[in-house]
Amino acid sequence: MEIRWEQQVLTAHEIFDLVREDLHGVEQVIGIESVASADIVRPISKYLQQSGGERLRAALLLLCSRFVGGGSSRMAIRLGAVVEMLHAATLVHADVIDVKQTRCGSSAKVQRANRTSVLAGDWLYMRAFRAALQEGVFDMVIGVAQMMVMGELIQLDPIGITEAACLEQVDRQIAGLFSACGRLGAVAAGVDMRDRDKLGEFAWNLGMAFQLIDDLRDFVSCESTPGQPTGGHLKDCRVTLPLVYALAQATVSERDLVAGVLRDRSNNVVPFANVLELVDRYGGVQRTRVRARKFTDRARQIVAEFPDNPCRRALLTLTDLVTERDC
Amino acid sequence: MEIRWEQQVLTAHEIFDLVREDLHGVEQVIGIESVASADIVRPISKYLQQSGGERLRAALLLLCSRFVGGGSSRMAIRLGAVVEMLHAATLVHADVIDVKQTRCGSSAKVQRANRTSVLAGDWLYMRAFRAALQEGVFDMVIGVAQMMVMGELIQLDPIGITEAACLEQVDRQIAGLFSACGRLGAVAAGVDMRDRDKLGEFAWNLGMAFQLIDDLRDFVSCESTPGQPTGGHLKDCRVTLPLVYALAQATVSERDLVAGVLRDRSNNVVPFANVLELVDRYGGVQRTRVRARKFTDRARQIVAEFPDNPCRRALLTLTDLVTERDC
Repeated sequence: MEIRWEQQVLTAHEIFDLVREDLHGVEQVIGIESVASADIVRPISKYLQQSGGERLRAALLLLCSRFVGGGSSRMAIRLGAVVEMLHAATLVHADVIDVKQTRCGSSAKVQRANRTSVLAGDWLYMRAFRAALQEGVFDMVIGVAQMMVMGELIQLDPIGITEAACLEQVDRQIAGLFSACGRLGAVAAGVDMRDRDKLGEFAWNLGMAFQLIDDLRDFVSCESTPGQPTGGHLKDCRVTLPLVYALAQATVSERDLVAGVLRDRSNNVVPFANVLELVDRYGGVQRTRVRARKFTDRARQIVAEFPDNPCRRALLTLTDLVTERDC
Repeated sequence: MEIRWEQQVLTAHEIFDLVREDLHGVEQVIGIESVASADIVRPISKYLQQSGGERLRAALLLLCSRFVGGGSSRMAIRLGAVVEMLHAATLVHADVIDVKQTRCGSSAKVQRANRTSVLAGDWLYMRAFRAALQEGVFDMVIGVAQMMVMGELIQLDPIGITEAACLEQVDRQIAGLFSACGRLGAVAAGVDMRDRDKLGEFAWNLGMAFQLIDDLRDFVSCESTPGQPTGGHLKDCRVTLPLVYALAQATVSERDLVAGVLRDRSNNVVPFANVLELVDRYGGVQRTRVRARKFTDRARQIVAEFPDNPCRRALLTLTDLVTERDC
């Protein structure tokens, strides 16, 4: 789900150079060496590393802050740590949700892994909330966290899901936190409500595009993911936008085919090639691409309204990087 | 783990009558009808019901508040809801940890149950933290929550665990929240720090005794749990005080016997009767009973230092009830 920076090494480097020192500060704040017991530190640091070393959300927050005149501040760094801890907590708990028992008899091992995941996630949430309160942004942060949890709890009918409902889920699960990164960056820079909302809207659009491109990559093969796409989301019972578009036009028997994969949670009965063919026939990928581009266009438009500075270029590049993952 | 009120219907009724109306208020605050979507409400209310209808922790908080002169207040009721939501969240997440796959092939069902448990727990934690902040007790509440999580994360060597380490775990996992109930009750009543500490200490001792008696009941059969005790905790890899005392004196081969149960997570290889016999031989149950009584004695002593009032009798009865579960 993370941007594959290695594809655009120079550009990504350019962005990160602007906030590299602050990102180092973020790592130190996240750093859990302050916790007394190694028993606790070990599992949590494992998950923090897994949750994406590139710290995309913190970088976004720091860039947004600098973009509107905020310097390198303790507050921005601490807020960067807050959004990364929040992100890691949701990933860690999603890990529990997705943990699979590959063979009979490994129940105890799965249980131990689940146990550590739940507790490490709890610990990260609590740490993030505590820091958010200290920085005076508790309401915003817990609001986003609750929205993400609700986004996961809401059960949509996977076959009958509409475009609007699908986008609302992306908002709750992904773009809401992106939006918070923009707004928190603005808070750290001390700008007025108008600019705060603008940056929130920019980051929200970026987040929406980010996830749509991610969902799209599930149905196309490209340089960075060679070979046949495997439809991982679908096997996890997640029907994403490319398939939503296809299902809206599909025949009853085509819908039954997808329902079969969802029932099975595998492609043992219905080969994924059949689903791919369906998505392709109804232009699901192409329509998702167009929808994602609308979000990135809007993101670029908002940024362009601000005076030029090195961070403006960085935010535009970030937006390009998100779009270009669409291979 | 809950007090079996039905054993002492009249006495328990006496206690509850004092705070019945406030407990009703607690239910309304916990009540999640305010949440918009039924998709979210259903799983969470299921868990809230499971987490013990008797609301022991809220009752303790409300009684402590009244005991030191607090009337029926919105704050006490809301804090009662906070401790119950916190308790429910830890139970719900423990549910994930303990979920067992009874047969091969039920993986998807277990996964769905896990998913809902994790998210419902997250939701309850966040709701509790939000309410705690509104009542000005965020630091105390999140401190207790973090301590409980750490208590679960810390991995003790089950065979070499000392009495002190075992009691420290009981403190973290159970008595810490009890102590918070006493202190929060005092906060709601608006009394000074000295009385706050006294009530915290009373409730802490009550919580320690509560859990030790619970652990003890794992090794004895009694009226309310007829038949052979089954050592449920042990199969969950939890070595509790009766066994800790026994292991401290046990021979190498006796320790190996217990290690066998822990490795197995069942009594398929080593019958639980052998473990019972071991605990019995070294007086593990008796010593735990004595240790628990020290806690209840101290709890009674603290309460007795306060002037008499109906709530004092209720707190003493509560302490008796905890002790008398030792059958």
